[in-house]
Amino acid sequence: MKKVGIIMGSDSDLGVVEKAIDTLKDLEIPFEVHIYSAHRTPIEARDFSVNARENGFGAIIAAAGKAAHLAGAIAANTTVPVIGIPVKSSTLDGLDALLSTVQMPGGIPVATVAIDGAQNAALLAAQIIAVSDAELAQKLDAQRKAAMETVLKKNQDISAKYNN
Amino acid sequence: MKKVGIIMGSDSDLGVVEKAIDTLKDLEIPFEVHIYSAHRTPIEARDFSVNARENGFGAIIAAAGKAAHLAGAIAANTTVPVIGIPVKSSTLDGLDALLSTVQMPGGIPVATVAIDGAQNAALLAAQIIAVSDAELAQKLDAQRKAAMETVLKKNQDISAKYNN
Amino acid sequence: MKKVGIIMGSDSDLGVVEKAIDTLKDLEIPFEVHIYSAHRTPIEARDFSVNARENGFGAIIAAAGKAAHLAGAIAANTTVPVIGIPVKSSTLDGLDALLSTVQMPGGIPVATVAIDGAQNAALLAAQIIAVSDAELAQKLDAQRKAAMETVLKKNQDISAKYNN
Amino acid sequence: MKKVGIIMGSDSDLGVVEKAIDTLKDLEIPFEVHIYSAHRTPIEARDFSVNARENGFGAIIAAAGKAAHLAGAIAANTTVPVIGIPVKSSTLDGLDALLSTVQMPGGIPVATVAIDGAQNAALLAAQIIAVSDAELAQKLDAQRKAAMETVLKKNQDISAKYNN
Amino acid sequence: MKKVGIIMGSDSDLGVVEKAIDTLKDLEIPFEVHIYSAHRTPIEARDFSVNARENGFGAIIAAAGKAAHLAGAIAANTTVPVIGIPVKSSTLDGLDALLSTVQMPGGIPVATVAIDGAQNAALLAAQIIAVSDAELAQKLDAQRKAAMETVLKKNQDISAKYNN
Amino acid sequence: MKKVGIIMGSDSDLGVVEKAIDTLKDLEIPFEVHIYSAHRTPIEARDFSVNARENGFGAIIAAAGKAAHLAGAIAANTTVPVIGIPVKSSTLDGLDALLSTVQMPGGIPVATVAIDGAQNAALLAAQIIAVSDAELAQKLDAQRKAAMETVLKKNQDISAKYNN
Amino acid sequence: MKKVGIIMGSDSDLGVVEKAIDTLKDLEIPFEVHIYSAHRTPIEARDFSVNARENGFGAIIAAAGKAAHLAGAIAANTTVPVIGIPVKSSTLDGLDALLSTVQMPGGIPVATVAIDGAQNAALLAAQIIAVSDAELAQKLDAQRKAAMETVLKKNQDISAKYNN
Amino acid sequence: MKKVGIIMGSDSDLGVVEKAIDTLKDLEIPFEVHIYSAHRTPIEARDFSVNARENGFGAIIAAAGKAAHLAGAIAANTTVPVIGIPVKSSTLDGLDALLSTVQMPGGIPVATVAIDGAQNAALLAAQIIAVSDAELAQKLDAQRKAAMETVLKKNQDISAKYNN
Repeated sequence: MKKVGIIMGSDSDLGVVEKAIDTLKDLEIPFEVHIYSAHRTPIEARDFSVNARENGFGAIIAAAGKAAHLAGAIAANTTVPVIGIPVKSSTLDGLDALLSTVQMPGGIPVATVAIDGAQNAALLAAQIIAVSDAELAQKLDAQRKAAMETVLKKNQDISAKYNN
Repeated sequence: MKKVGIIMGSDSDLGVVEKAIDTLKDLEIPFEVHIYSAHRTPIEARDFSVNARENGFGAIIAAAGKAAHLAGAIAANTTVPVIGIPVKSSTLDGLDALLSTVQMPGGIPVATVAIDGAQNAALLAAQIIAVSDAELAQKLDAQRKAAMETVLKKNQDISAKYNN
Repeated sequence: MKKVGIIMGSDSDLGVVEKAIDTLKDLEIPFEVHIYSAHRTPIEARDFSVNARENGFGAIIAAAGKAAHLAGAIAANTTVPVIGIPVKSSTLDGLDALLSTVQMPGGIPVATVAIDGAQNAALLAAQIIAVSDAELAQKLDAQRKAAMETVLKKNQDISAKYNN
Repeated sequence: MKKVGIIMGSDSDLGVVEKAIDTLKDLEIPFEVHIYSAHRTPIEARDFSVNARENGFGAIIAAAGKAAHLAGAIAANTTVPVIGIPVKSSTLDGLDALLSTVQMPGGIPVATVAIDGAQNAALLAAQIIAVSDAELAQKLDAQRKAAMETVLKKNQDISAKYNN
Repeated sequence: MKKVGIIMGSDSDLGVVEKAIDTLKDLEIPFEVHIYSAHRTPIEARDFSVNARENGFGAIIAAAGKAAHLAGAIAANTTVPVIGIPVKSSTLDGLDALLSTVQMPGGIPVATVAIDGAQNAALLAAQIIAVSDAELAQKLDAQRKAAMETVLKKNQDISAKYNN
Repeated sequence: MKKVGIIMGSDSDLGVVEKAIDTLKDLEIPFEVHIYSAHRTPIEARDFSVNARENGFGAIIAAAGKAAHLAGAIAANTTVPVIGIPVKSSTLDGLDALLSTVQMPGGIPVATVAIDGAQNAALLAAQIIAVSDAELAQKLDAQRKAAMETVLKKNQDISAKYNN
Repeated sequence: MKKVGIIMGSDSDLGVVEKAIDTLKDLEIPFEVHIYSAHRTPIEARDFSVNARENGFGAIIAAAGKAAHLAGAIAANTTVPVIGIPVKSSTLDGLDALLSTVQMPGGIPVATVAIDGAQNAALLAAQIIAVSDAELAQKLDAQRKAAMETVLKKNQDISAKYNN
Repeated sequence: MKKVGIIMGSDSDLGVVEKAIDTLKDLEIPFEVHIYSAHRTPIEARDFSVNARENGFGAIIAAAGKAAHLAGAIAANTTVPVIGIPVKSSTLDGLDALLSTVQMPGGIPVATVAIDGAQNAALLAAQIIAVSDAELAQKLDAQRKAAMETVLKKNQDISAKYNN
């Protein structure tokens, strides 16, 4: 199976990124985790990206805060799909990271998820790999169904409490 | 090859969406175009989504403005990757559509591109299909190289004009 | 009397929604509470909406956060008045939910109240039912008068403290 | 049938408000149009509101721009449902009017629609009156169905053009 | 001497407003404090305003949060200068109150200070009264000089610590 | 009578400021107009401010765009009331000027009006002078009444057109 | 003398950047102009930066719009001062470019100027070079004085027109 | 070596500014720290600026919050490069300070860094001095390399933990 690369710009992003790691583990999708900074280790970030397809990556998740260039910098060096997680930092509530990640110029797409949306980044990576992996697609559909049933169960509980 | 679905919420979005159509044509990726509204034709939007994988879609692009629910509504009914294009409307400069598209709750990802970013939406769809299509991947890499050369040519021109 | 439906997108919204429940109880307006997600249980959300008028609902309150599609998704399936409560989540201070709820396209109105404004959502539902229920209208007027008197009493207290 | 009051803060809002007038005419709902300013004619605005229920109004639409106090000022003087239309003016793209209209304090709800969303304001007024008017409810449902068919027709046209 | 009226929309604003009270006490300017709500006690708010000049008020400070209509509602009923304090509430960081207070339509000015800027509101009221009160003007100038000296003293301390 | 100083940061602000000039002329309030820049002519801006009270100014209006420091820079050098007009420039729709003008630190108030709100700036200056000028106060009240009558006349016209 | 590098992300930024070119020409500071994209020509952008000091550059100006990574990408590869010009594009009024340019993480500074602020970018570059070039410093001071005199002349004209 | 001036508008900014002090100490760059307020001590702020070049300053860092005029006020009085640090205060998350610092009018540049970005302000000052100081330039390059190695070390650690 294709692997998912998870890159974060700083180890301070690990708290957000862990949800992506857990989600991929649950789905038994192989992954690699790296700390590469678009600004502090541009060469390593570039090398990872240039070789990503050859190294068996089917999607790359990049998480960064503030002027979040990481996802774009990786996307500039590969045509493997890159998923950007804007990370909320101490000011501006994540709006800076969101705009820096999503407003990419024509030619270099970044698939952006919600601020701190690491679970959805992992699910999107899984969906991308599942396009040519029917078994994984089934797992994703089953997971959806389970989530639906959790909501329905909670609805029953709350109905029992408030409605008669 | 997997197809790409292009859904817009209103025919007024066609001006934006056409760039996605052209990009897919250039890459010779098969596609279907539909007008389905999350609010005005919820049943048709849902039917399209539920059957998307079975009908051979590898990615779905959804474009909508204002309280842009379309991408999320489609994503809720399929685990095929859904790409959201927030469309700028007459007020708020597209910020409403961006937040309505990207800030999806956990479990239902939407791969969001820039406001009015139809070209990148199509490229992202192509990248997703290319994960298991080496020939398309090569096309995308070649296109990148051509874009790079265009920039380098422009750099030469401007250097000739201003630098000596 | 017509009933009020209270739908929340997730049980994490209950803290906000309880104020609506309390307000309806005070006014002795019958209500039902449900957890339906526009994205995780789209079918149940739809079924509730389609049958809302027939099932005796005179107004539906929908509370959701982030890319808050719930109120719009319900409004798409009924012409019973739908009241949207944008719920503040961990980023962007509720602005995402506000814009996702209020900026509805022409044809599908959502009556939006303030971020986390559950009390006003319930009052608005009551006002809607009171249009054809003179007794309830009188209750609402009396409640207003009582609120006015509370403010006037506080004004007396603060006047006694600061003015002489 | 209950009437709908349409109040605008300035005659410069008429361009926006006309869509509400047309929508009510289409639905054959009786209405009255007034220019009352929360700030320039506070007494007349107040008198209209205080007597609104007695004068047969089932809903009041208030349109204003900038620091848009009109809807709130009317809502302060009646428990008839008040619908606020935030009007875009020459700066801030309507955000000022939106926040001034929707962020009402507890106790005084304003049912806010999208910036310049006059059509939806009228539809919401119609839905409110239709809670106790089965015939009007049917008209609204029929109108919805017609809108759906318009979208489906446009989908057919675009499918014919792009899909084969 | 002319008095200053201090009006707050709710007793929850008292924490912010107290700084204005303290500032006026320091300057020995007579004042009255009231809780009047633009929405819950519109008549009392109006009566206070209409009679403000006759009752000896030279400036009125109005503090309110969210869709902060209080300052505008008072200004609509008097030509005594009205100073608005936008109060930060639980969402949107005071931006809603700022825009609702400052973006007044032509004809009805509100002199707006910073979010939660109660000290400056009181100083502005004092400056207004001081236009025709030379003694108060001197007090304000002296206070400015004292503030300057405090900064210069702090500068000396920090210079002693860091510079040699 | 006290004079009003009108300072603009650049002659490009004259289009906005002219409305203030006209308003003062209508009220027969003496005024002086100057172009002083907080950044390009800081000495002249300072000199004007330091001597403003002595030179008979009862209020100073300062209009500037972008990082609008002018009103604050003038207010730092006088305790005569300073009224700030944030001027909209080619980007950010005036939000930069608004925040730069209104968010003054404690001790140095600026009475801020709406973006491009020159008419209200002049009215506020007039209200300040009218605190100790009963005749001007009457003029302002008369002007208000005339504005009210204009709105009522427009209401009659629109009532005649739409209501029967 | 040290040279100034002017890099733009796309030839569509030339309209903005020309003001920087003219300013440098006026000051007789040598410069080079290039089109390098952080995303489309990352290698060339990097090569330019890595060799900038050695090639005699004393400051680098980088102009880009949307998710404007260019200034940061250049700054990541050199310790020559990098000046970022956020360029306004078709949506969000330049806010995206501003935040993407200015909110750089610790370690990699970008000296950011106003949206579309090309003149100031060139002046800042000149000021940086002038730190060790007394003649250029004098030119800058003279230019300031001339600008001051222009404002004073305009003030005279407007005084002659409005004041007597 | 040229000195760096560090000016803060209030001693409450010291917590933010200390990171700049530490960074300059690490680089052994001489500096002076002052508290000067653009509004409370305009004369001292001006005197410092006017004499800055003569007194051996190669760069000036100015930190201020809210309507942050300090950097602009200093820049207005010198052509030594001025670096602005927008400081986050209790409301608006630093956006007010950012816009007040960065949106300077043509002619008076301020090199703006991120909100609370004191480390980068000091690094930028160091880069400016290093333009004519090869030894300092080498120090900065060495520091960059060390930062890169820290990231690479962290990457090794996280790789050891997650990848096999």
